[in-house]
Amino acid sequence: MRIALLAFDGFDELELFILCGLLNRLGTHGWKAEITSLASQITSMSGVTVHAARPLEFANEADAVVFGSNTYARAMAENSALVDRFQLDPLRQLIAAQGSGSLMLGRLGLLAEMPACVDVHTKPWLNEAGVRVVKEPFHARGSVATSSGGLAAPYLAAWLMMRGAGKEATQQALQEAAPEGQKEPYVQQIMRTVRVFMPPQD
Amino acid sequence: MRIALLAFDGFDELELFILCGLLNRLGTHGWKAEITSLASQITSMSGVTVHAARPLEFANEADAVVFGSNTYARAMAENSALVDRFQLDPLRQLIAAQGSGSLMLGRLGLLAEMPACVDVHTKPWLNEAGVRVVKEPFHARGSVATSSGGLAAPYLAAWLMMRGAGKEATQQALQEAAPEGQKEPYVQQIMRTVRVFMPPQD
Repeated sequence: MRIALLAFDGFDELELFILCGLLNRLGTHGWKAEITSLASQITSMSGVTVHAARPLEFANEADAVVFGSNTYARAMAENSALVDRFQLDPLRQLIAAQGSGSLMLGRLGLLAEMPACVDVHTKPWLNEAGVRVVKEPFHARGSVATSSGGLAAPYLAAWLMMRGAGKEATQQALQEAAPEGQKEPYVQQIMRTVRVFMPPQD
Repeated sequence: MRIALLAFDGFDELELFILCGLLNRLGTHGWKAEITSLASQITSMSGVTVHAARPLEFANEADAVVFGSNTYARAMAENSALVDRFQLDPLRQLIAAQGSGSLMLGRLGLLAEMPACVDVHTKPWLNEAGVRVVKEPFHARGSVATSSGGLAAPYLAAWLMMRGAGKEATQQALQEAAPEGQKEPYVQQIMRTVRVFMPPQD
Protein backbone atom coordinates (compact mmCIF):
# COMPACT_ATOMS: atom_id res chain seq x y z
CA MET A 1 0.00 0.00 0.00
CA ARG A 2 1.71 3.17 -1.23
CA ILE A 3 0.14 6.35 0.12
CA ALA A 4 0.73 9.88 -1.20
CA LEU A 5 0.36 12.44 1.58
CA LEU A 6 0.09 15.64 -0.43
CA ALA A 7 1.58 18.68 1.26
CA PHE A 8 2.52 22.15 0.02
CA ASP A 9 3.94 25.31 1.60
CA GLY A 10 1.47 26.34 4.31
CA PHE A 11 0.50 22.76 5.26
CA ASP A 12 -0.89 21.83 8.69
CA GLU A 13 1.80 19.72 10.37
CA LEU A 14 -0.50 18.43 13.11
CA GLU A 15 -2.81 16.47 10.80
CA LEU A 16 -0.18 15.54 8.20
CA PHE A 17 2.03 13.86 10.78
CA ILE A 18 -0.73 12.14 12.73
CA LEU A 19 -1.60 10.43 9.46
CA CYS A 20 2.02 9.82 8.51
CA GLY A 21 2.88 8.39 11.93
CA LEU A 22 -0.18 6.13 12.20
CA LEU A 23 -0.09 4.76 8.63
CA ASN A 24 3.62 3.99 8.77
CA ARG A 25 2.99 1.85 11.86
CA LEU A 26 1.78 -0.67 9.25
CA GLY A 27 5.26 -0.79 7.71
CA THR A 28 5.50 -4.51 8.49
CA HIS A 29 2.33 -4.97 6.41
CA GLY A 30 4.08 -3.33 3.44
CA TRP A 31 2.58 0.12 3.94
CA LYS A 32 4.50 3.28 3.12
CA ALA A 33 3.01 6.76 3.48
CA GLU A 34 5.19 9.47 1.93
CA ILE A 35 5.09 13.23 1.75
CA THR A 36 4.36 14.16 -1.84
CA SER A 37 4.78 17.68 -3.20
CA LEU A 38 5.71 20.08 -5.97
CA ALA A 39 8.99 20.99 -4.30
CA SER A 40 11.67 18.94 -2.59
CA GLN A 41 11.26 20.98 0.61
CA ILE A 42 8.09 22.52 2.01
CA THR A 43 7.37 24.71 5.02
CA SER A 44 4.36 24.28 7.31
CA MET A 45 1.96 27.00 8.49
CA SER A 46 3.98 27.32 11.68
CA GLY A 47 7.36 27.44 9.92
CA VAL A 48 8.65 23.85 10.04
CA THR A 49 10.52 22.78 6.88
CA VAL A 50 10.30 19.13 5.85
CA HIS A 51 11.58 17.13 2.89
CA ALA A 52 9.12 15.68 0.40
CA ALA A 53 9.90 12.08 -0.53
CA ARG A 54 7.93 12.02 -3.78
CA PRO A 55 7.10 14.34 -6.69
CA LEU A 56 3.50 15.36 -7.35
CA GLU A 57 2.88 12.74 -10.01
CA PHE A 58 3.29 9.97 -7.42
CA ALA A 59 -0.27 10.86 -6.36
CA ASN A 60 -1.58 9.58 -9.70
CA GLU A 61 -0.13 6.12 -9.24
CA ALA A 62 -0.38 5.67 -5.45
CA ASP A 63 -2.93 3.30 -3.90
CA ALA A 64 -4.21 6.08 -1.64
CA VAL A 65 -4.01 9.88 -1.86
CA VAL A 66 -4.64 12.41 0.92
CA PHE A 67 -4.94 16.20 0.59
CA GLY A 68 -4.34 18.09 3.83
CA SER A 69 -5.33 21.47 5.23
CA ASN A 70 -3.35 24.38 3.90
CA THR A 71 -3.24 28.12 4.53
CA TYR A 72 -3.52 28.60 0.75
CA ALA A 73 -6.03 25.79 0.10
CA ARG A 74 -8.51 28.05 -1.64
CA ALA A 75 -5.97 29.53 -4.06
CA MET A 76 -4.61 26.06 -4.77
CA ALA A 77 -8.05 24.70 -5.69
CA GLU A 78 -8.42 27.63 -8.11
CA ASN A 79 -5.02 27.05 -9.72
CA SER A 80 -5.80 25.17 -12.94
CA ALA A 81 -2.14 24.48 -13.72
CA LEU A 82 -1.90 22.59 -10.42
CA VAL A 83 -5.32 20.94 -10.58
CA ASP A 84 -4.68 19.63 -14.11
CA ARG A 85 -1.65 17.64 -12.95
CA PHE A 86 -3.87 15.28 -10.95
CA GLN A 87 -5.30 12.22 -12.65
CA LEU A 88 -6.91 10.49 -9.72
CA ASP A 89 -9.27 7.58 -10.05
CA PRO A 90 -11.64 6.48 -7.27
CA LEU A 91 -12.05 3.11 -9.00
CA ARG A 92 -8.45 2.14 -8.24
CA GLN A 93 -7.47 4.58 -5.46
CA LEU A 94 -8.65 5.58 -2.01
CA ILE A 95 -8.91 9.38 -2.10
CA ALA A 96 -9.28 11.57 0.97
CA ALA A 97 -8.94 15.08 2.37
CA GLN A 98 -8.42 16.63 5.78
CA GLY A 99 -9.89 20.05 6.59
CA SER A 100 -9.51 22.58 3.81
CA GLY A 101 -7.92 19.90 1.61
CA SER A 102 -11.52 19.04 0.71
CA LEU A 103 -11.62 22.14 -1.52
CA MET A 104 -9.30 20.29 -3.90
CA LEU A 105 -11.51 17.18 -3.83
CA GLY A 106 -14.46 19.41 -4.69
CA ARG A 107 -12.56 21.05 -7.53
CA LEU A 108 -11.56 17.62 -8.89
CA GLY A 109 -15.24 16.65 -8.93
CA LEU A 110 -14.69 13.86 -6.44
CA LEU A 111 -17.28 14.92 -3.87
CA ALA A 112 -20.17 14.67 -6.35
CA GLU A 113 -23.32 14.18 -4.30
CA MET A 114 -21.59 13.21 -1.07
CA PRO A 115 -21.48 15.47 1.99
CA ALA A 116 -18.06 16.53 3.31
CA CYS A 117 -16.52 17.23 6.72
CA VAL A 118 -14.43 20.37 7.12
CA ASP A 119 -13.36 22.97 9.63
CA VAL A 120 -15.65 25.97 10.18
CA HIS A 121 -13.38 28.32 8.23
CA THR A 122 -13.59 26.21 5.07
CA LYS A 123 -17.32 25.53 5.31
CA PRO A 124 -18.59 28.62 3.42
CA TRP A 125 -16.15 28.04 0.54
CA LEU A 126 -17.18 24.43 0.19
CA ASN A 127 -20.86 25.40 0.30
CA GLU A 128 -20.12 27.95 -2.41
CA ALA A 129 -18.75 25.11 -4.53
CA GLY A 130 -22.07 23.30 -4.11
CA VAL A 131 -20.89 20.76 -1.55
CA ARG A 132 -23.04 19.99 1.50
CA VAL A 133 -21.05 20.14 4.76
CA VAL A 134 -21.88 17.93 7.74
CA LYS A 135 -20.76 18.76 11.27
CA GLU A 136 -19.03 15.43 11.89
CA PRO A 137 -15.40 14.41 12.36
CA PHE A 138 -15.43 11.97 9.43
CA HIS A 139 -17.52 10.96 6.43
CA ALA A 140 -16.89 8.58 3.55
CA ARG A 141 -18.74 7.26 0.56
CA GLY A 142 -17.25 4.43 -1.48
CA SER A 143 -13.55 5.13 -1.88
CA VAL A 144 -13.69 8.88 -1.12
CA ALA A 145 -13.45 10.28 2.41
CA THR A 146 -13.16 13.58 4.26
CA SER A 147 -12.22 14.39 7.86
CA SER A 148 -12.83 17.73 9.53
CA GLY A 149 -9.07 18.24 9.94
CA GLY A 150 -6.72 18.70 12.89
CA LEU A 151 -7.23 16.13 15.64
CA ALA A 152 -9.84 14.26 13.53
CA ALA A 153 -6.88 12.73 11.65
CA PRO A 154 -6.98 9.38 13.53
CA TYR A 155 -10.46 8.71 12.06
CA LEU A 156 -9.15 9.10 8.54
CA ALA A 157 -6.09 6.97 9.33
CA ALA A 158 -8.38 4.26 10.74
CA TRP A 159 -10.59 4.30 7.63
CA LEU A 160 -7.58 3.95 5.32
CA MET A 161 -6.17 1.12 7.44
CA MET A 162 -9.54 -0.67 7.63
CA ARG A 163 -9.95 -0.44 3.85
CA GLY A 164 -6.41 -1.52 3.05
CA ALA A 165 -5.30 -3.81 5.87
CA GLY A 166 -8.43 -4.99 7.68
CA LYS A 167 -9.80 -4.71 11.18
CA GLU A 168 -7.16 -6.58 13.14
CA ALA A 169 -4.17 -4.62 11.78
CA THR A 170 -6.06 -1.35 12.25
CA GLN A 171 -6.88 -2.06 15.88
CA GLN A 172 -3.30 -3.07 16.56
CA ALA A 173 -1.83 0.10 15.04
CA LEU A 174 -4.29 2.36 16.89
CA GLN A 175 -3.77 0.46 20.14
CA GLU A 176 -0.02 1.03 19.89
CA ALA A 177 -0.43 4.80 19.56
CA ALA A 178 -3.40 5.34 21.92
CA PRO A 179 -2.86 6.90 25.37
CA GLU A 180 -1.95 4.51 28.19
CA GLY A 181 -4.76 3.69 30.57
CA GLN A 182 -7.37 4.58 27.91
CA LYS A 183 -6.41 2.34 25.00
CA GLU A 184 -9.52 0.18 24.88
CA PRO A 185 -12.22 2.92 24.89
CA TYR A 186 -10.05 5.19 22.71
CA VAL A 187 -9.64 2.58 19.97
CA GLN A 188 -13.25 1.36 20.19
CA GLN A 189 -14.59 4.90 19.76
CA ILE A 190 -12.54 5.41 16.59
CA MET A 191 -13.51 1.99 15.20
CA ARG A 192 -17.22 2.63 15.87
CA THR A 193 -17.11 5.98 14.06
CA VAL A 194 -15.35 4.57 11.00
CA ARG A 195 -17.07 1.17 10.76
CA VAL A 196 -20.36 2.56 9.42
CA PHE A 197 -18.51 3.79 6.32
CA MET A 198 -17.10 0.39 5.36
CA PRO A 199 -18.36 -1.38 2.26
CA PRO A 200 -20.88 -4.15 3.18
CA GLN A 201 -18.49 -7.07 2.49
CA ASP A 202 -16.08 -5.92 5.24
CA MET B 1 6.88 31.57 25.74
CA ARG B 2 9.74 29.90 23.88
CA ILE B 3 9.49 26.13 23.76
CA ALA B 4 12.29 23.73 22.80
CA LEU B 5 10.89 20.57 21.22
CA LEU B 6 13.91 18.29 21.37
CA ALA B 7 14.17 15.83 18.51
CA PHE B 8 16.96 13.61 17.22
CA ASP B 9 17.34 11.03 14.44
CA GLY B 10 14.75 8.33 15.13
CA PHE B 11 12.16 10.72 16.59
CA ASP B 12 8.41 9.95 16.63
CA GLU B 13 6.80 12.42 14.21
CA LEU B 14 3.27 11.76 15.41
CA GLU B 15 3.78 13.12 18.91
CA LEU B 16 6.35 15.79 18.01
CA PHE B 17 4.03 17.43 15.50
CA ILE B 18 0.85 17.15 17.57
CA LEU B 19 2.70 19.20 20.17
CA CYS B 20 4.26 21.54 17.63
CA GLY B 21 0.94 22.15 15.86
CA LEU B 22 -1.08 22.72 19.04
CA LEU B 23 1.43 24.95 20.84
CA ASN B 24 2.01 27.15 17.81
CA ARG B 25 -1.73 27.82 17.67
CA LEU B 26 -0.89 30.23 20.53
CA GLY B 27 1.34 32.26 18.22
CA THR B 28 -0.85 35.32 18.74
CA HIS B 29 -0.13 34.98 22.48
CA GLY B 30 3.61 35.17 21.73
CA TRP B 31 4.24 31.42 21.83
CA LYS B 32 6.81 29.76 19.62
CA ALA B 33 7.58 26.04 19.75
CA GLU B 34 10.67 25.07 17.76
CA ILE B 35 12.39 21.85 16.84
CA THR B 36 15.68 21.77 18.71
CA SER B 37 18.45 19.34 17.91
CA LEU B 38 22.12 18.45 17.59
CA ALA B 39 21.98 18.58 13.80
CA SER B 40 20.38 20.99 11.35
CA GLN B 41 18.38 18.15 9.78
CA ILE B 42 16.96 15.08 11.49
CA THR B 43 15.09 12.03 10.21
CA SER B 44 12.10 10.46 11.96
CA MET B 45 11.57 6.78 12.78
CA SER B 46 9.53 6.44 9.60
CA GLY B 47 12.02 8.27 7.40
CA VAL B 48 10.75 11.87 7.26
CA THR B 49 13.53 14.48 7.27
CA VAL B 50 12.82 17.83 8.94
CA HIS B 51 14.87 20.93 9.64
CA ALA B 52 15.72 21.84 13.22
CA ALA B 53 15.20 25.54 13.98
CA ARG B 54 17.44 25.67 17.06
CA PRO B 55 20.69 24.17 18.33
CA LEU B 56 20.69 21.95 21.41
CA GLU B 57 21.71 24.73 23.80
CA PHE B 58 18.40 26.52 23.17
CA ALA B 59 16.88 23.94 25.54
CA ASN B 60 18.86 25.44 28.44
CA GLU B 61 17.38 28.90 27.99
CA ALA B 62 13.85 28.09 26.75
CA ASP B 63 10.80 28.59 28.96
CA ALA B 64 9.69 25.01 28.33
CA VAL B 65 11.55 21.91 27.16
CA VAL B 66 10.06 18.66 25.82
CA PHE B 67 11.88 15.38 25.13
CA GLY B 68 10.06 13.08 22.70
CA SER B 69 10.01 9.36 22.00
CA ASN B 70 12.93 8.07 20.01
CA THR B 71 14.03 4.72 18.59
CA TYR B 72 17.39 5.28 20.28
CA ALA B 73 16.08 6.83 23.51
CA ARG B 74 17.86 4.33 25.73
CA ALA B 75 21.26 4.82 24.13
CA MET B 76 20.78 8.59 24.25
CA ALA B 77 20.03 8.56 27.99
CA GLU B 78 23.26 6.58 28.48
CA ASN B 79 25.33 8.99 26.39
CA SER B 80 27.10 11.18 28.96
CA ALA B 81 28.50 13.55 26.33
CA LEU B 82 24.92 14.34 25.28
CA VAL B 83 23.40 14.35 28.77
CA ASP B 84 26.06 16.76 30.06
CA ARG B 85 25.05 19.43 27.55
CA PHE B 86 21.72 19.94 29.30
CA GLN B 87 21.48 22.43 32.14
CA LEU B 88 17.77 22.39 32.77
CA ASP B 89 16.17 23.99 35.79
CA PRO B 90 12.64 23.12 36.97
CA LEU B 91 12.58 26.35 39.01
CA ARG B 92 12.54 28.49 35.87
CA GLN B 93 11.44 26.02 33.17
CA LEU B 94 8.57 23.65 32.45
CA ILE B 95 10.19 20.31 31.62
CA ALA B 96 8.37 17.40 30.02
CA ALA B 97 8.74 14.15 28.14
CA GLN B 98 6.61 12.04 25.82
CA GLY B 99 6.97 8.25 25.78
CA SER B 100 10.56 7.04 25.87
CA GLY B 101 11.74 10.65 26.20
CA SER B 102 11.15 10.11 29.93
CA LEU B 103 14.37 8.05 30.05
CA MET B 104 16.27 11.31 29.58
CA LEU B 105 14.27 13.02 32.35
CA GLY B 106 15.14 10.09 34.61
CA ARG B 107 18.81 10.31 33.70
CA LEU B 108 18.81 14.06 34.40
CA GLY B 109 17.42 13.34 37.86
CA LEU B 110 14.23 15.25 37.13
CA LEU B 111 11.74 12.51 37.98
CA ALA B 112 12.99 12.21 41.58
CA GLU B 113 10.14 10.71 43.58
CA MET B 114 7.42 11.36 41.01
CA PRO B 115 5.77 8.60 38.99
CA ALA B 116 6.04 8.74 35.19
CA CYS B 117 3.83 7.82 32.23
CA VAL B 118 5.40 5.90 29.37
CA ASP B 119 4.62 3.40 26.64
CA VAL B 120 4.80 -0.31 27.53
CA HIS B 121 8.11 -0.79 25.72
CA THR B 122 9.87 1.84 27.83
CA LYS B 123 8.35 0.77 31.14
CA PRO B 124 10.94 -1.90 32.13
CA TRP B 125 13.85 0.48 31.40
CA LEU B 126 12.33 3.22 33.48
CA ASN B 127 11.62 0.80 36.31
CA GLU B 128 15.25 -0.30 36.09
CA ALA B 129 16.24 3.35 36.60
CA GLY B 130 14.21 3.36 39.83
CA VAL B 131 11.23 5.31 38.46
CA ARG B 132 7.69 4.19 39.23
CA VAL B 133 5.50 3.96 36.14
CA VAL B 134 1.76 4.64 36.23
CA LYS B 135 -0.62 3.39 33.54
CA GLU B 136 -2.08 6.80 32.74
CA PRO B 137 -1.92 9.09 29.71
CA PHE B 138 -0.44 12.00 31.66
CA HIS B 139 1.14 12.84 35.01
CA ALA B 140 2.78 15.99 36.36
CA ARG B 141 4.30 17.21 39.59
CA GLY B 142 5.24 20.84 39.95
CA SER B 143 6.89 21.92 36.73
CA VAL B 144 7.82 18.43 35.47
CA ALA B 145 5.43 16.32 33.38
CA THR B 146 5.32 13.08 31.40
CA SER B 147 2.83 11.75 28.88
CA SER B 148 2.64 8.14 27.73
CA GLY B 149 3.55 9.19 24.19
CA GLY B 150 1.85 8.94 20.79
CA LEU B 151 -1.75 10.14 20.82
CA ALA B 152 -1.46 11.25 24.46
CA ALA B 153 0.33 14.35 23.15
CA PRO B 154 -2.75 16.64 23.41
CA TYR B 155 -2.72 16.17 27.21
CA LEU B 156 0.83 17.40 27.44
CA ALA B 157 0.10 20.30 25.10
CA ALA B 158 -2.90 21.25 27.25
CA TRP B 159 -0.82 21.17 30.45
CA LEU B 160 1.86 23.42 28.93
CA MET B 161 -0.78 25.84 27.64
CA MET B 162 -2.64 25.87 30.97
CA ARG B 163 0.61 26.58 32.83
CA GLY B 164 1.80 29.26 30.44
CA ALA B 165 -1.29 30.90 28.96
CA GLY B 166 -4.22 30.05 31.24
CA LYS B 167 -7.48 28.21 30.88
CA GLU B 168 -9.22 30.37 28.29
CA ALA B 169 -6.41 30.36 25.74
CA THR B 170 -5.94 26.62 26.23
CA GLN B 171 -9.59 25.84 25.63
CA GLN B 172 -9.63 28.02 22.55
CA ALA B 173 -6.56 26.37 20.99
CA LEU B 174 -7.87 22.86 21.70
CA GLN B 175 -11.34 23.77 20.42
CA GLU B 176 -9.84 24.95 17.14
CA ALA B 177 -8.05 21.64 16.56
CA ALA B 178 -10.68 19.23 17.97
CA PRO B 179 -12.85 17.13 15.62
CA GLU B 180 -16.05 18.78 14.32
CA GLY B 181 -19.22 17.60 16.02
CA GLN B 182 -17.27 16.47 19.12
CA LYS B 183 -15.45 19.64 20.15
CA GLU B 184 -17.12 20.21 23.50
CA PRO B 185 -16.71 16.69 25.03
CA TYR B 186 -13.28 16.32 23.42
CA VAL B 187 -11.91 19.50 24.97
CA GLN B 188 -13.60 18.93 28.32
CA GLN B 189 -12.12 15.46 28.64
CA ILE B 190 -8.60 16.81 28.05
CA MET B 191 -9.12 19.72 30.45
CA ARG B 192 -10.46 17.40 33.18
CA THR B 193 -7.44 15.10 32.87
CA VAL B 194 -4.94 17.94 33.07
CA ARG B 195 -6.63 20.19 35.62
CA VAL B 196 -5.80 17.98 38.62
CA PHE B 197 -2.10 18.61 37.98
CA MET B 198 -2.31 22.40 38.13
CA PRO B 199 -0.73 24.28 41.05
CA PRO B 200 -3.39 25.31 43.61
CA GLN B 201 -3.36 29.02 42.65
CA ASP B 202 -4.59 28.27 39.12
